[in-house]
Amino acid sequence: MSVANAPMSRADRSITIVGGGGAMGRLFSTLFRAAGHRVESLEAGDAAFAIERTANAALVLLAVPIERTCDLIAALPELPSDCVLADITSIKRAPLSAMLAAHPGPVVGLHPMFGPDVRSLAGQLVVVCHGRDPARYQWLLDLISGWGARLGEETAERHDQAMQVIQAMRHFTSIAYGLFLQREQADLHQLLRLSSPIYRLELGMVGRLFAQDPALYADIMLQAEDLPELIESYRDALDELLGLLREGRREALIERFGAARQHFGDLAPALLKESAALLGRMQSPPQGGAT
Amino acid sequence: MSVANAPMSRADRSITIVGGGGAMGRLFSTLFRAAGHRVESLEAGDAAFAIERTANAALVLLAVPIERTCDLIAALPELPSDCVLADITSIKRAPLSAMLAAHPGPVVGLHPMFGPDVRSLAGQLVVVCHGRDPARYQWLLDLISGWGARLGEETAERHDQAMQVIQAMRHFTSIAYGLFLQREQADLHQLLRLSSPIYRLELGMVGRLFAQDPALYADIMLQAEDLPELIESYRDALDELLGLLREGRREALIERFGAARQHFGDLAPALLKESAALLGRMQSPPQGGAT
Repeated sequence: MSVANAPMSRADRSITIVGGGGAMGRLFSTLFRAAGHRVESLEAGDAAFAIERTANAALVLLAVPIERTCDLIAALPELPSDCVLADITSIKRAPLSAMLAAHPGPVVGLHPMFGPDVRSLAGQLVVVCHGRDPARYQWLLDLISGWGARLGEETAERHDQAMQVIQAMRHFTSIAYGLFLQREQADLHQLLRLSSPIYRLELGMVGRLFAQDPALYADIMLQAEDLPELIESYRDALDELLGLLREGRREALIERFGAARQHFGDLAPALLKESAALLGRMQSPPQGGAT
Repeated sequence: MSVANAPMSRADRSITIVGGGGAMGRLFSTLFRAAGHRVESLEAGDAAFAIERTANAALVLLAVPIERTCDLIAALPELPSDCVLADITSIKRAPLSAMLAAHPGPVVGLHPMFGPDVRSLAGQLVVVCHGRDPARYQWLLDLISGWGARLGEETAERHDQAMQVIQAMRHFTSIAYGLFLQREQADLHQLLRLSSPIYRLELGMVGRLFAQDPALYADIMLQAEDLPELIESYRDALDELLGLLREGRREALIERFGAARQHFGDLAPALLKESAALLGRMQSPPQGGAT
């Protein structure tokens, strides 16, 4: 963790977080401050103060809603040439292009794969999409590593492709499942009372989404340009199985199961083992929980 | 845990497990033996030995594939009048009717909500559907409670309704999701490498299924008579959201999210809290796992 070239050695430099008042902005403000940095928070309406609050910045970090990121990047004042420009948006291609166009200095795209409710960054993943002059933002990556996070390098293109499945599609199918439960007026308390630990987990993964920000989920889904095609493909798989089910074709159902199993390969038993260990740890849900 | 009326006080009585060689049958054999009982295992082909192996039985427990349960119940020899007849099939209406018709003595339907890979029954749920003469099988329920399991009473009808959602539909959508990943030739290792803990959990819940018995899943799905309608309803919810997504109707997406959120009510924040605690515990996946 060399900090030889760290601009932070100059005590008069600050870190400016655009959207520092949002949930993720506050999390990073706290972390930077705890590491001894002076943090300036800039809100979207603060355009008039933007220049003075970035004139001394060693880092300008965008932590704003996904649909506003690119507009706000374009509206940034000229930054010091060695200032690092970075963002933590859930998509990476568009913001990275916008940052590279807006600032000739060091640029990096980050995607923290966790929400503002984490208790620490230990073991958490931050995806890193390199932009320009990696040597000049290494101090920032070292800082994040120092908080215990794992850094995962990926191109912006491959990141965005993967996130359409990991985030957008998962949110989409979870919201659809929640809508289904509402349509059917399912008795959720009875379902939880009769649940296996696995279904309890599943309902937990769906339910936790509904305690969070709908606009963020809508924007992640709307920004994922291949999402409609992914959903169509998933629906085709549903329809294929449904046809076999309606016709009572047991052997064909087992055969489709085998095809999917083959794609998982050695991962299937590894995931069984990993989840069995996790399920073992959750056998006694915390008192006062959602039973 | 009164055992005053327990027929097991007679040392010459045995427990007969039909399907004792299967995974769940072996689990219960081990538990009964560890509790000091003599266990006879009866396989489907053992019809010729059935009478001598059940003549002394205090309990005959069916642990056979769901599609064979009712046929095997009908083929049972006459049991001692105080013998308890019980099953552990994933559906309860049909087997309970069949057991009540086959045996005039005490009858109870059980559904262990766990698989044969559990390390202990502590905290696990066993659903109990009462059949006839509860006082005469209380010793069996006491034994199961003594192993640490929770007993959840439910009517066979309501059990089967709930399990169509908790089991059949979850298996169906998980298999469809696995088929989707196979169709798209998704790079599962890359997805896991870039996963949030939540997506890792989700992929784990899907992947663990593919390490298990396809015939069991096919039979649970085929026995769930309302499953096609449930899947249609879920697909309608998917289609409704997909339409809004294609038209870029952000406000309408947020409105649907709100409708589903309302159905969850106070459960949403409770599930968020519960899952946050669980996710906190899994931040460091075991070494050698499926990373």
